Amino acid sequence: MNVGELNGSESLMPETAATDRCWVGFDLGGTKMLAVVTDDHFQPIARKRRKTRSEEDNSIGMGRVINTIERVLEEAGITADRLAGIGIGCPGMLELDRGIVREAGNLGWENVPVQSQLEKAFGCPAVILNDVDAGVYGEYRFGSAQKAHTALGIFPGTGVGGGMIYEGRIFRGKNCSCLEVGHMQVMADGPRCSCGRQGCLEAVSSRLAISAAAAQAVFRGQAPKLAELAGSDLANIRSGMLVEAIKKGDKIIEQIVKDAAGHLGTAIGGLVHALAPDVIVLGGGLVEAMPDLYVEQVSAAAKKWVLPAYAKTYEIVAAKLGDDAVALGAAAWAEATIAA
Amino acid sequence: MNVGELNGSESLMPETAATDRCWVGFDLGGTKMLAVVTDDHFQPIARKRRKTRSEEDNSIGMGRVINTIERVLEEAGITADRLAGIGIGCPGMLELDRGIVREAGNLGWENVPVQSQLEKAFGCPAVILNDVDAGVYGEYRFGSAQKAHTALGIFPGTGVGGGMIYEGRIFRGKNCSCLEVGHMQVMADGPRCSCGRQGCLEAVSSRLAISAAAAQAVFRGQAPKLAELAGSDLANIRSGMLVEAIKKGDKIIEQIVKDAAGHLGTAIGGLVHALAPDVIVLGGGLVEAMPDLYVEQVSAAAKKWVLPAYAKTYEIVAAKLGDDAVALGAAAWAEATIAA
Repeated sequence: MNVGELNGSESLMPETAATDRCWVGFDLGGTKMLAVVTDDHFQPIARKRRKTRSEEDNSIGMGRVINTIERVLEEAGITADRLAGIGIGCPGMLELDRGIVREAGNLGWENVPVQSQLEKAFGCPAVILNDVDAGVYGEYRFGSAQKAHTALGIFPGTGVGGGMIYEGRIFRGKNCSCLEVGHMQVMADGPRCSCGRQGCLEAVSSRLAISAAAAQAVFRGQAPKLAELAGSDLANIRSGMLVEAIKKGDKIIEQIVKDAAGHLGTAIGGLVHALAPDVIVLGGGLVEAMPDLYVEQVSAAAKKWVLPAYAKTYEIVAAKLGDDAVALGAAAWAEATIAA
Repeated sequence: MNVGELNGSESLMPETAATDRCWVGFDLGGTKMLAVVTDDHFQPIARKRRKTRSEEDNSIGMGRVINTIERVLEEAGITADRLAGIGIGCPGMLELDRGIVREAGNLGWENVPVQSQLEKAFGCPAVILNDVDAGVYGEYRFGSAQKAHTALGIFPGTGVGGGMIYEGRIFRGKNCSCLEVGHMQVMADGPRCSCGRQGCLEAVSSRLAISAAAAQAVFRGQAPKLAELAGSDLANIRSGMLVEAIKKGDKIIEQIVKDAAGHLGTAIGGLVHALAPDVIVLGGGLVEAMPDLYVEQVSAAAKKWVLPAYAKTYEIVAAKLGDDAVALGAAAWAEATIAA
């Protein structure tokens, strides 16, 4: 599925019967937000995408979230009384049972009662969940992990996010989300991580770690194609450029990506013994930009690591839903939670 | 709780009313087996402990398991028609849904239909489960992890075993047990593991890894107390001797144990982000021999590793049930499975 441009919107099926229940799924990211209205089968009716922070206002409040939902409903020609529920995937540390975002550095949020504010604004049940969990749940319900007993999702990006669907429900802590696999130690005394520790998985296999190694290669003159595309500022290096540089012949970039995928695969191999997932979904921009290379490299490294007894218990696949995964997963989770 | 001597047995409450339901829990280990008959509240009535292999016969068959249960029932003065169910904790690779031990190297077993043979022999429902899972479930029901939302059990022994109770049920794969945490890589290019790979958790923190390091210290003349107690053959080094050597002043042995506990604590810290357990139970002979030292060292290392957001979400405790954990957990799991 593709979505409208940033800050754009589209109405896909405005003719939906007025008596049907509708859902809203929301993806609240650090840089952009996406609201999707769906019908009762979670088919998108309309989408609204906006930057998380407006140009005038550097603080983002619940007002902007609510306003975005109002706009997408308007776009779809749907009134709030038809809404059966709202699910919103949020970053940061969440208090799941009370529906509060306890702390989200990216948003500058502390103790924001997201659930109650949405319920008040739209007069329907709302639920919050971790954004990566929402994405994995989306893949479980509608994407490449359907019908899995245990679906483990791993999303290498700025960090390495994870989520798990276990026997149909999102795996969680007593009152918090989990599967923060990025901060497991995989290399004692390894590279320094964003968290201050050494040798975390995300310090060796995130997109950021790849970009840092790639920028060094550019600086050393070993990656002329990437030098043309992005230069040596790692802030400019995007997943698509890495793919293009590899295609154009930057062998060292290919090796850097393969190394990172290899570390990820070894860690996933360890998680196969620990969690016995039958489906492992890889997603995020990096994987989307080079699904074949990535899935192949991760699979090869995992295969080397996994004990013979577990060799045939799992498959590794690429995510399918792209930018819609979090919003659709959140909407479907709202239904699953309300029904429970 | 203490148990009778090896190959001994005891009858604790033979006067139980004849109308009450009884359960059998069974711990099938590589060197010894333990059968426990309990009342309907899982209070032990009698125990029967035997070596897994008899002196005459180096192969152990289901006959010996069945015979041990018959003997413990006799001891307790209970007839098979009062049995509500049998739970048996088994090592190796299990096919949970069909109740088959697919492969257990320690026992020399391949494709043994344990569940159906027990059901046929005793005319009551039976269930098989992984032995470590059974032990953790025992701690969850009757020991130090009661009422946990997510109880993670870690048992450093010859390897490093693990099990998890999630929302009241044993966490499992589609058709296999899991939480084989011993084979997660914690040290890229680290010491060689039993599985052939390098840097697995169990290669740096199992009792065997400790014994190997301790034997080296003895050989080098750095651990005179352990030299007196055990010599340099690591097959002779038992947990109790390590404690005694430490008490008598072998500083290097203390350091070796602390190093291993530290690696374990770091790995547990990583699992806190991944699984958000609210209770982590440490068990097995090594922990039992020095619970304070071990829990303290593991906790300190975990605390250093855990991200601030998860700092107050968990506690680390020592197991309570000792040798009874697996059998009692298996019996209680039989009830939970039959009721489900």
